[in-house]
Amino acid sequence: MNNSSTIFPTGEAAPADYFTGTALVKLLVSNNAVFNCQIANVVFEPGSRNNWHTHPGGQILLVTDGIGYYQEEGKIIQLLQKGDIVTIAPDLKHWHGASPDSAFTHIAINPNTQKGVVEWLERVTDEEYNSFQ
Amino acid sequence: MNNSSTIFPTGEAAPADYFTGTALVKLLVSNNAVFNCQIANVVFEPGSRNNWHTHPGGQILLVTDGIGYYQEEGKIIQLLQKGDIVTIAPDLKHWHGASPDSAFTHIAINPNTQKGVVEWLERVTDEEYNSFQ
Repeated sequence: MNNSSTIFPTGEAAPADYFTGTALVKLLVSNNAVFNCQIANVVFEPGSRNNWHTHPGGQILLVTDGIGYYQEEGKIIQLLQKGDIVTIAPDLKHWHGASPDSAFTHIAINPNTQKGVVEWLERVTDEEYNSFQ
Repeated sequence: MNNSSTIFPTGEAAPADYFTGTALVKLLVSNNAVFNCQIANVVFEPGSRNNWHTHPGGQILLVTDGIGYYQEEGKIIQLLQKGDIVTIAPDLKHWHGASPDSAFTHIAINPNTQKGVVEWLERVTDEEYNSFQ
């Protein structure tokens, strides 16, 4: 399959406590004290998304395939597609995932992990997920 | 063109002082004090490479297309291809570039940029470049 979603491995199912639906997460670079940078390849199946969450050191998403959703607290859902870059400030509450009818793949880069990697919060409700206009 | 090298923009020609041959560099995330992380998409045309150099905060390469070379000082050249991940320790002298007959695309991630981004050193000679076995 000559598909950009296959550039990096797709990994294991993400934990159900922090994701709704099926997402596959492969750590490409584990968190360590030399790089202070964790990198993962994440494939969201259609309709799947992670919980609301924050990153103490911020996060950068590089979208490599599909059509996805990204929402910051208090704002409307933004549509994401291949080639999009999202910079998420430290401690900004947000979630991301696939759109209802398309899978979605991004590389998630967490810098400054000496400050922590992620703080998981409540689930994204169907009402929130279905609010895209 | 449904080619993975086109996921992210290809940018401008890299500075001739630090590169041999033609490489195109597009900053995806500029260095700043919030993320301490600079990210670039780099496309090397066949035969092109950067100078020997070091990164005070280390570097991570995510290879998205083509066939390339990577060499650490005192070691032989390693061949790189789509899907490869290279973690380069802080202050480790190295270079990277395309192989002679193939272009090469990687995403270059520089974490810990509060320590600096790059220290450019001498050019990679043709003898060094042609030493791949």
